[in-house]
Parts: sequence; structure tokens; C-alpha cells
Amino acid sequence: MKKLLITLRYDGYNYHGYQVQKNAVTVQEVFQNAVEKVFNKRLDVTGCSRTDSGVHANMYCVCIESDMDISNESVIMALNTYLPSDIAVYDCKEVDVDFHPRYSCKSKEYLYKLYNGKYPNPFLDRYAYWYRFPIDEKYLNEQAQAFLGTHDFAGFCSSKSDVEDTERTIYSFDVWREGDMVYFKVCGDGFLYNMVRIMVGSLLFVSQGKIKKDELYDVIKSCDRNRAGKTAPAKGLYLNKVNY
Amino acid sequence: MKKLLITLRYDGYNYHGYQVQKNAVTVQEVFQNAVEKVFNKRLDVTGCSRTDSGVHANMYCVCIESDMDISNESVIMALNTYLPSDIAVYDCKEVDVDFHPRYSCKSKEYLYKLYNGKYPNPFLDRYAYWYRFPIDEKYLNEQAQAFLGTHDFAGFCSSKSDVEDTERTIYSFDVWREGDMVYFKVCGDGFLYNMVRIMVGSLLFVSQGKIKKDELYDVIKSCDRNRAGKTAPAKGLYLNKVNY
Repeated sequence: MKKLLITLRYDGYNYHGYQVQKNAVTVQEVFQNAVEKVFNKRLDVTGCSRTDSGVHANMYCVCIESDMDISNESVIMALNTYLPSDIAVYDCKEVDVDFHPRYSCKSKEYLYKLYNGKYPNPFLDRYAYWYRFPIDEKYLNEQAQAFLGTHDFAGFCSSKSDVEDTERTIYSFDVWREGDMVYFKVCGDGFLYNMVRIMVGSLLFVSQGKIKKDELYDVIKSCDRNRAGKTAPAKGLYLNKVNY
Repeated sequence: MKKLLITLRYDGYNYHGYQVQKNAVTVQEVFQNAVEKVFNKRLDVTGCSRTDSGVHANMYCVCIESDMDISNESVIMALNTYLPSDIAVYDCKEVDVDFHPRYSCKSKEYLYKLYNGKYPNPFLDRYAYWYRFPIDEKYLNEQAQAFLGTHDFAGFCSSKSDVEDTERTIYSFDVWREGDMVYFKVCGDGFLYNMVRIMVGSLLFVSQGKIKKDELYDVIKSCDRNRAGKTAPAKGLYLNKVNY
């Protein structure tokens, strides 16, 4: 029996997130079906994280255990044959039996893509949030540093969540522009439900003056969801990197 | 009565090309419906070119004539309100009454996007052709210069075409790489049905050695469709620029 760590990318547009749900198509379900075709039996697929409906992944890690004698390269090729075009595997390697894609994870990085052009862009409609008002990305990058460190992020969490421990540590937060695109990249030890999208929405509140200069730290400390910004749309969000 | 030159972008994935057809959704039809809603009547929409089913446009020009007193900026905003998210207007200006989006055009530029990664990329599936074999883009760029000048391109035209004059002039042809992407950009006075896709397919034949070094010129001169390469998939092709 060997444990395989498989890395994939997916366009989340057509999926209700990663985690299996009743009455909704999810990445996990589609992936499990492909695994079943390759390995000729139903195998447990353990993922590294939940992702919200519509959220994308540049890097998503899963583990399966199998006793089949098949090369890692063949696993990649075979899975890609059975996966639809919006999900693709690009790495597969053997790991220790006690490795866990979720609990062995040291940090995660999310990327948020915002299209800041004056008019809508058909090629980015599924892949970035169109926000046409002026953005001073240097100012936002400076203000975003308030997120760094260990905080109780209860105010940056969907009310639908029932997680008890809302303390998380943020290692870095960068905001920058490339042409009409504005990027938000955040790395932390873990994230609450909708947390990155509320962080981005709060920075847009900073951009609009609804959260004042240097006020973001107080907004975090208040643990008040009503003081944070709106949840930014899912389609701009990418799970970008999982660090083990 | 004033004549407006309107510039748009579209993701051609869901369309059977630009030109209106029976029993198939086209960009022109969808655009005409949006124009009708904005101007409160059916107006003729004249396009700059046909495009094949599935082909995209970074720049596509159309003209309409109207006597409505509405600013150019309002035309852009109003059309984008009624257009689906895969078509968007980004410019509108008044032109002379004798201007014609097709006949006034001095040259057109097409861009072909090829994804040269080892494994499929879900985010590029609709927008680039995945070709995983090695490509020496510098060699292809050098060989592609055979297309330059005025030639009878009868061998680079779909057999479905009934155009009589198959002579066209190519002004430039560039092939270059950016990471895993390989781009082909061609500018000419006009293009035959499937011509750019057959040019790209022929360069892939050059890459595979099926067309030998410096043989491309003879392939063109032969006017033999069977000596040229396969038609590259539509999804990698973009009408990139229309020069007036």
C-alpha cells in the first residue's frame, strides 16, 4: 500500500466548491469518479481544504492510498484522460503514510484577481472580479499590512460558519498592479469561511474611504462582521499554493 | 444621421462565428439584439470580417447608422448593459458616412495562442490550443518569414471556400515564447477562410519535420492544400487588430 500526493488545478466556475455535497456537482466528486476509473475501485480521496462555490485553484493537493503497481507519471496521464477539461492533474508523488494533505500543511496562499479596466473584459469574466473604480494599489498594500500577525478574525468570517476557534496567523499580504489587473496575495496558517474574500472586500472599503486610513487594525480587533467590508465575489479567488 | 464605429471584444467559445446564420447563435445576432434595445429599433450592423466558429476577437469593429442623440460614452455603457458577459464594447466614435468597417480596412492582425505545457491547463482550455510537444520558437519564427509578401494562398484555404481571388499579402509574421505560451502573430491585407489556422498548422508541421527546413516557400508556391499542415483548432485564434 502506498500513499500518493496528487496536485491539481481547477477552474471552479462550474463547481459548488471542492467538498462533496448532496445535489450539487463538486470537484471532489468528479475527481473521485476519475480515480475510480483509473484504479478500478472506489478509493478515499482526502483533500487539503474546502473551497467555496466558484473558487478556483492553481494548486490543490489530495491524497489517495493504493496498492496498484503504476508509475506516478502514468497516474497523472490516466487521471487527465478521465477528468473534464476544467480539472487537471500536474504532479503525483509518493509520501509517508502519516502525511495528511490538510493537517501536514504548514501554510496556504490565496491569490485574488481584480480587473480594474473601465469596461468589462469577456476573457476575464470567469476569472477575475471586474471593479471599475480607481484603485491606489500602493496605498492598499500599505494598509493591508494590518492583517499581519495573529488575530482573532471573527469579524472576517461568514455568519454561516460554526468554527469555534477564529484565531489565525497571517504571514504576508501583498497588493500590486500589472496593467489593468490588481492582485491581492495572502499567506497564512489557515483561513476561515469567506475570510480572504472579506479581507479583499475590506480593502475595497479602504479604497472607497468607508474604512479610514490606519483604521483596518481596529476593524480586525473589533471582531465585528459589520465593520469589515463586503465579501468579494468568488470568481476572483484562487487557492494558489499549499506549503508542506 | 451619423455613422458610429463601435469596437468590441468577444470570447467566441459559445458562438458559431460572427456572421448571422440560420439555426446557430452568432455574435452578430446577439449584438444586433443589444443594438435594438439601446436604439429602440432594428438597425443594420456591418462587421469588419467573418470569423470562424469558436474564434475570439480582441478587437472587432462594426458600424451602425443612427439619428439618436446619445453620447458615444452612453452607447458603450448601454450596449454593455444588454450584451452577455462574453461580448463587450470598449470604444465608440463617429466616422465619415463613406467609412466601411470591411472595405476601409488597410490590414488585419491575427494572434494565435498555443499552450506548450506538459499537462493540460484548465484556465486556458477555452483560450489556447494545448500542444505538448517541444517547439523551437526561434526556428519557427525564422521559417515563418516565407509567408511574407504577396502570394497565391490557394493551398492555405479551406476547400469549403468559394473565393476566386486567393492572392493575399502578408506584412509580418512573428513567433515567440512567453513561459509555456507560444504566440503566432500575423498581419496581412486580408485572409482566406481558415488561412491563419492552416499557417499555424503548417508551422507545427515544420516543427515536426513534416515540412523540411526552408521548404515552406515551395509549399506556398505549390498551391496544394495537401502539402500544407492541418488546420489548427479555432479556440487558439484571436482577431487581434483591425487597422484603418
